[in-house]
Amino acid sequence: MHIPFTKMHGLGNNYIYINLFDTELQEEQLVPLAIAMSDVKRGIGSDGIVLIHPSDEGHCGMRIFNKDGSEATNCGNALRCVAKFVYDRGILPYEQFIIATKSGLNYVQVTAQHGLASTITINMGKPAFDRAAMNMKGEPSAHVINEPFVVEGHTLHMTNVFLGNPHAVFFVERIEEAPLHTLGRQIETHDVFLQRTNVEFIEIVSDTEMHFRVWERGSGVTEACGTGACGAVVAAVMNGKCKRGEDVLVHLAGGDLTIKWDDDGDVWMTGPAEFIADGLFFT
Amino acid sequence: MHIPFTKMHGLGNNYIYINLFDTELQEEQLVPLAIAMSDVKRGIGSDGIVLIHPSDEGHCGMRIFNKDGSEATNCGNALRCVAKFVYDRGILPYEQFIIATKSGLNYVQVTAQHGLASTITINMGKPAFDRAAMNMKGEPSAHVINEPFVVEGHTLHMTNVFLGNPHAVFFVERIEEAPLHTLGRQIETHDVFLQRTNVEFIEIVSDTEMHFRVWERGSGVTEACGTGACGAVVAAVMNGKCKRGEDVLVHLAGGDLTIKWDDDGDVWMTGPAEFIADGLFFT
Repeated sequence: MHIPFTKMHGLGNNYIYINLFDTELQEEQLVPLAIAMSDVKRGIGSDGIVLIHPSDEGHCGMRIFNKDGSEATNCGNALRCVAKFVYDRGILPYEQFIIATKSGLNYVQVTAQHGLASTITINMGKPAFDRAAMNMKGEPSAHVINEPFVVEGHTLHMTNVFLGNPHAVFFVERIEEAPLHTLGRQIETHDVFLQRTNVEFIEIVSDTEMHFRVWERGSGVTEACGTGACGAVVAAVMNGKCKRGEDVLVHLAGGDLTIKWDDDGDVWMTGPAEFIADGLFFT
Repeated sequence: MHIPFTKMHGLGNNYIYINLFDTELQEEQLVPLAIAMSDVKRGIGSDGIVLIHPSDEGHCGMRIFNKDGSEATNCGNALRCVAKFVYDRGILPYEQFIIATKSGLNYVQVTAQHGLASTITINMGKPAFDRAAMNMKGEPSAHVINEPFVVEGHTLHMTNVFLGNPHAVFFVERIEEAPLHTLGRQIETHDVFLQRTNVEFIEIVSDTEMHFRVWERGSGVTEACGTGACGAVVAAVMNGKCKRGEDVLVHLAGGDLTIKWDDDGDVWMTGPAEFIADGLFFT
């Protein structure tokens, strides 16, 4: 069997995209296919596969299976890639549309040059701050904004933001000194987080610019995390370090994103998406 | 620019194959292309690229560029993949032909089922044993067969075989106890080897069967090394542990190879090759 695929990346976060408008797959094929295609030695090599499918709720839908076969609920980098795919390939030749995911509906805006998407802006939804949303121990409705947090004998100051995923955000003076490798896993798996957490370190450059590094739940250090960058900007606004309602330029290891937390409470992420290859996978 | 490619693997050793019978590339494109295509995050992901090209010396030629852009002289797994590619795709629809590489001419025999190559046998050439061929310190014409070798305070017994690459072979009682991670790098970079060496540990099962693990020069532990498996069988014959002129089944981490050192002195390697995907790479 030959399965048509497209490999794309957003800031180095790379998935194999399968267009289910054209290709039919059975539900029981998806997990083995995600594992097989993601394996760099005997497959293509990727962070997982993303299915782009017709949807009654949005103009199209997307499902993500990680390289280990687990299904993810959402991914900002994948949303940008799906938006570029359906725009550039004429499936949805509109500058605004809705992509349905397991975590809800995502409003997308394409900025095009010469008929191709150059950047994509995604509505990432509204943040939540309560411990219940974060799946944390403690009073369910309480927020954690710049509170002391002890890990491995260090006292850090933590701000928690839920935006599709839980995020634990910490300010550092110099991004090079972010304790990703020394404290990332320990914070992720700290017993206050009942479902673990993503961990972000940020260095504020100005009220519209920051450096950002991430330890992703289940993945460790990665080059980019879209929801993490959004969570970081929200955390910075909550701490009075960045401006609400303005574009904040976030420098991730894999490239730049622009994030805005608007006055209506929605977070918008703007960034690139790139085609790598089209192909046929033999299975 | 769109570059047609095919990803294949032999025992998990995976390269991106580019058919220069159909596609034209400039010499100055090759190194950047190898680096870009091999990168799993922003390219396809592979151990490198292999160019399959017309040749005046063989029926076709092959060049290998590693993922770091360096050019390799030869690779047994890549030879099998090239043989399957040119046979299955009708470029060389013959059961025997010659592939030219930087290290010389390689005689290839295809065993076909239903018109497709199921296994491929490669003539890997004649082994050499002298320290000069191995690029070792000491008397240039001397051989090293089961000689004491001290590394990190351990005294092992080493047999050296050159077969396209240098190999330092050691027998172990149980393959699970092969000191790959503890001594691999130390043996590779031991100062007796002026150009470093590959390191192989083998457990003899019978005079026609062995287990095999490898530390590859410059790569560390890998699943498979074709020339290493050949070197291991030659070393086993030299030590009276395997039969000359008979097929020896070698169990590598990535799968099985069958190796024969024939009475004329040639070493023959038989194994599989697999197509993974065809595609177009956007650059």
